[in-house]
Amino acid sequence: MPGISPHEHDHIMELVARRQPGHGLPTEFYVDELVYQAELERIWRRGWLFAGHTCQVPQPGDYFTLDVGSDPLIVIRDDEGSIRALHNVCRHRGAELCTAASGRIGRFICPYHQWAYARDGSLQSCRGMQADLDTSDLGLHGVHVQVLEGLVFISLAEEPPAFDLAAALIGPAARPQGFEQARVAKIVDYDVAANWKIVWENNRECYHCNVNHPQYIQANFDHYNADDTTPQTQAAIDAASARSQEKWAASGLAVTHTRTGMTSFPACGPDGWFSANRTPLVDGYLSETMDGCQVAPLMGDYSDPDVGTLRMRTMPNFWNHSSCDHGVSTRLLPAGIGRTRVQVTWLVAGDAEEDRDYRLDEIMPFWQLTSEQDWTICESVQRGVGSSRYTPGPFSTYKEYNVDALVNWYLEQVGSQP
Amino acid sequence: MPGISPHEHDHIMELVARRQPGHGLPTEFYVDELVYQAELERIWRRGWLFAGHTCQVPQPGDYFTLDVGSDPLIVIRDDEGSIRALHNVCRHRGAELCTAASGRIGRFICPYHQWAYARDGSLQSCRGMQADLDTSDLGLHGVHVQVLEGLVFISLAEEPPAFDLAAALIGPAARPQGFEQARVAKIVDYDVAANWKIVWENNRECYHCNVNHPQYIQANFDHYNADDTTPQTQAAIDAASARSQEKWAASGLAVTHTRTGMTSFPACGPDGWFSANRTPLVDGYLSETMDGCQVAPLMGDYSDPDVGTLRMRTMPNFWNHSSCDHGVSTRLLPAGIGRTRVQVTWLVAGDAEEDRDYRLDEIMPFWQLTSEQDWTICESVQRGVGSSRYTPGPFSTYKEYNVDALVNWYLEQVGSQP
Amino acid sequence: MPGISPHEHDHIMELVARRQPGHGLPTEFYVDELVYQAELERIWRRGWLFAGHTCQVPQPGDYFTLDVGSDPLIVIRDDEGSIRALHNVCRHRGAELCTAASGRIGRFICPYHQWAYARDGSLQSCRGMQADLDTSDLGLHGVHVQVLEGLVFISLAEEPPAFDLAAALIGPAARPQGFEQARVAKIVDYDVAANWKIVWENNRECYHCNVNHPQYIQANFDHYNADDTTPQTQAAIDAASARSQEKWAASGLAVTHTRTGMTSFPACGPDGWFSANRTPLVDGYLSETMDGCQVAPLMGDYSDPDVGTLRMRTMPNFWNHSSCDHGVSTRLLPAGIGRTRVQVTWLVAGDAEEDRDYRLDEIMPFWQLTSEQDWTICESVQRGVGSSRYTPGPFSTYKEYNVDALVNWYLEQVGSQP
Repeated sequence: MPGISPHEHDHIMELVARRQPGHGLPTEFYVDELVYQAELERIWRRGWLFAGHTCQVPQPGDYFTLDVGSDPLIVIRDDEGSIRALHNVCRHRGAELCTAASGRIGRFICPYHQWAYARDGSLQSCRGMQADLDTSDLGLHGVHVQVLEGLVFISLAEEPPAFDLAAALIGPAARPQGFEQARVAKIVDYDVAANWKIVWENNRECYHCNVNHPQYIQANFDHYNADDTTPQTQAAIDAASARSQEKWAASGLAVTHTRTGMTSFPACGPDGWFSANRTPLVDGYLSETMDGCQVAPLMGDYSDPDVGTLRMRTMPNFWNHSSCDHGVSTRLLPAGIGRTRVQVTWLVAGDAEEDRDYRLDEIMPFWQLTSEQDWTICESVQRGVGSSRYTPGPFSTYKEYNVDALVNWYLEQVGSQP
Repeated sequence: MPGISPHEHDHIMELVARRQPGHGLPTEFYVDELVYQAELERIWRRGWLFAGHTCQVPQPGDYFTLDVGSDPLIVIRDDEGSIRALHNVCRHRGAELCTAASGRIGRFICPYHQWAYARDGSLQSCRGMQADLDTSDLGLHGVHVQVLEGLVFISLAEEPPAFDLAAALIGPAARPQGFEQARVAKIVDYDVAANWKIVWENNRECYHCNVNHPQYIQANFDHYNADDTTPQTQAAIDAASARSQEKWAASGLAVTHTRTGMTSFPACGPDGWFSANRTPLVDGYLSETMDGCQVAPLMGDYSDPDVGTLRMRTMPNFWNHSSCDHGVSTRLLPAGIGRTRVQVTWLVAGDAEEDRDYRLDEIMPFWQLTSEQDWTICESVQRGVGSSRYTPGPFSTYKEYNVDALVNWYLEQVGSQP
Repeated sequence: MPGISPHEHDHIMELVARRQPGHGLPTEFYVDELVYQAELERIWRRGWLFAGHTCQVPQPGDYFTLDVGSDPLIVIRDDEGSIRALHNVCRHRGAELCTAASGRIGRFICPYHQWAYARDGSLQSCRGMQADLDTSDLGLHGVHVQVLEGLVFISLAEEPPAFDLAAALIGPAARPQGFEQARVAKIVDYDVAANWKIVWENNRECYHCNVNHPQYIQANFDHYNADDTTPQTQAAIDAASARSQEKWAASGLAVTHTRTGMTSFPACGPDGWFSANRTPLVDGYLSETMDGCQVAPLMGDYSDPDVGTLRMRTMPNFWNHSSCDHGVSTRLLPAGIGRTRVQVTWLVAGDAEEDRDYRLDEIMPFWQLTSEQDWTICESVQRGVGSSRYTPGPFSTYKEYNVDALVNWYLEQVGSQP
């Protein structure tokens, strides 16, 4: 498909220029179909996207599917046990090879004319085609994959950006959580009537948490900021950090974010799309659960529940909060200028068994409530920013520095040369 | 948001030029997205729109919401008891302040980050923002309001057109009905799959009444026109007019439309967007009800039920028929080139109590049936005018003079300079 | 309505040029709104379309309605017993005259203002209009009709292409089936989320039959091709052909397709849009039913059930398979770039009575299953070809020669001069 034309690029750049520093994005970025096409081209088909967890596909042949905009994709574990990603589009007539959300296959057999592809996407058979057909280039179109401590990242780009810095940062932080040996406790899919940036802008500040997330703020410090962090609060953080680190001194686990507020993310430029850190929970909270109690077996390398929380995030579509006993990953996928598919996945230790070792009604509510509270807000914002009198407002320098950073990162990407 | 470009204006003017005098509008006016954008800009965001009734918000802090195209709005009674209209869009991140259809608030507190606005829209608090933020210009964007005998009109324009002529005409006509002291008996919302002009074109003639509105024609004279008004019919009108006026001589109430057919409306030009008149009902009908009986207490200043009917209408979105005992207001709002949100509101005297003084099944059927009969027709017309072979037909000079006037008024507005 | 502009035509031609011979169509042909508009203009409003069967409207005044894109149409039997087709759009204000799927009328009376039209579309009355109105040109816009052995074809073109070659070919083939004296046993409507060409491409090859149509391949030979037809299979065809022809020698009925694979269709150019032939069924199958048994009285001229199957097809919207005892017609109508309305009609002998002479659960499953299996595939293909990495694949020269022909035919039409 042809991309954004020079004329269309000029239109995008006009919109980019219209944004006032320190303020939100103009209406068009949330309602203009051309903006959506530029986002697909320059962000969603260019960078690294979080796809899911390796533990969703434990055995060779296990797969799951996802749609990035109008691109149907498959993530599969191949014969050698590696994770592969492929375009879910037969090279013959374009039928989807897998129509289920997940499953296991011996090889891909297109349901239309039974062209068969190995688990690595190479064409194995196309019975019925002419003998002189050159089949050397008829394997499934591949998608780049990077697996990082059980997290699967994909890139639709021909030449994806570097991944090594992300691996170097996220890897050590994620390792103790043991995602590679985890299991999925629950996946919930949401169809949110808001542009994906609104979902992100919501996620990048905790200014809205006080009233909207009564559960979340009981457990965390990040809704405090420079303007409202008392010495008592900072002392509580320091104590909680010290407590965790003392227990973990031997293993080198470090609390890397020891202030209130959110860590800075994203930074501008191509290397600013990832971050990870460990931060303490409020005294009395061992896990991001309704009452702070540990409700499932310890995950990964943890030998003590008092480990604070691991947080990871990558632009444009992933964040994760993990406690000692469970982790929660959120994945965004664009489904139109005003629509975002969100998948929230709860993970527990690989040998934990539902209703014996944990209960869904204990591990899910904290993040299910927090997520759904946010989707309601996001849909209201989508309606509001579509107003002909919507005027992008100023960001709080105390509390929305990350939303500002997000907007800056976004404008740099969406306005980049083809 | 940028408006209609010069190039797009030329396209609109080409369409305007294509219309044949005395005939309907070409297909594009009902299916072209650009036409819809021009209508929003030049009609819906320029003139006076009927929003609702003051009695919907009897107490300070009472509000209702409405959407004009993609513009969410609030109408509220402020601390001084005045009616205000505001854009329902927070000046911070654009969230809707009120998401309910109606309610009561002490002040506006944005559900997102709790920015607080007084009932007049001025910013009261934005805790969490930097101390040096200039908040002087961060009140809610206002919308012009004119209240006329209990009817609330709003204008999204920066400088709305004059309202004084409308007030001078409608005011005295509406006053005896006592809408300011009325109460809402029922509100019904409809989502009609037809362009708003089709709904208006339907409303501006009674040529279709004979077969489609068996209830309506029992009570009224306006389905007769110059071509089919018998001397007997005119004599009945004269008698009914004289009867009402005699009883009302002291108070000056006048039957102002004493012929068959509809009064002329709209006239071309900016001053032709309003009209009001009083007209007799058929002998035996004291109210626009199924059997003509009065079914609720007299409204307003009326001391006798024999007052004919008050009719009011304003372009682009309001008509009202009021009998001695109840009034019915119809409000149109555009929701896309092929979609109109219609709200029909039944009003009764302010001290009337449901099931003691009136019953919904007695005051509603007459206009509920008439309305719904029309929506069915309008949706069929929307499908028909989208045909590639639709040829705008001739209007009846006897019966559709007002549809012709409506089209002329519309073309003048939609083709006006930005 | 104005048509495709020269600039838009250039865009279409660029897309046409992008197609690689022997391969599928690029993405845009399945997702681009402009392509859809060009298809409506140059294919759907230009050629002959299958509308339905004369036996759907046995009596004068019987009608059925259909929508070709956004064009509502009526097919009716007029006073003389002839089939007429008319635009289902009142010449006055554009309302649909008939809103039901089928019915019987004395004359058309517009539900809006009761303009009345004779069954031939001529205006009979428009009471309420001015006396000096020139009504000579206010009849319903007509649509060209050709009736061929009980099949109704229509053309929306001002000057439709020639029909005589089609009549000469299809007529003699269809005659023995007796559609003119048939009756409709069942009509099923489907809304398929795929472009109409995907539905056709699916229909024009039996490469997909082996796995997808377990019922169909029991009865037929056309899923075999040059690459997999064994001498035994060809011998079975020869035997079956000879058997039918022997019985029918006297009446001249001929098996005209005596090889495996599908007969060639369509051919390029304006004369390649129709074909018909008779082909044997597998030994043991007398009808396209689940077990091959005859399940309804013989139709038409048949005196023996061993007549193979009659197949007919016309571009862009019709195919039919008919056995000795029943026929099945499939009609496609476009409803958007990614949406096709499909109507499948089962026909039996005119004097057959349901539950006495035939049962729906015996005549329907064979083609209902086969149809619905295909719609599922088509919707998957629509999703796949919309991928940014979809690469049109090569057609099998053995098995998809007709899909290639279809694409060639299509490109010639859609790229034709206005």
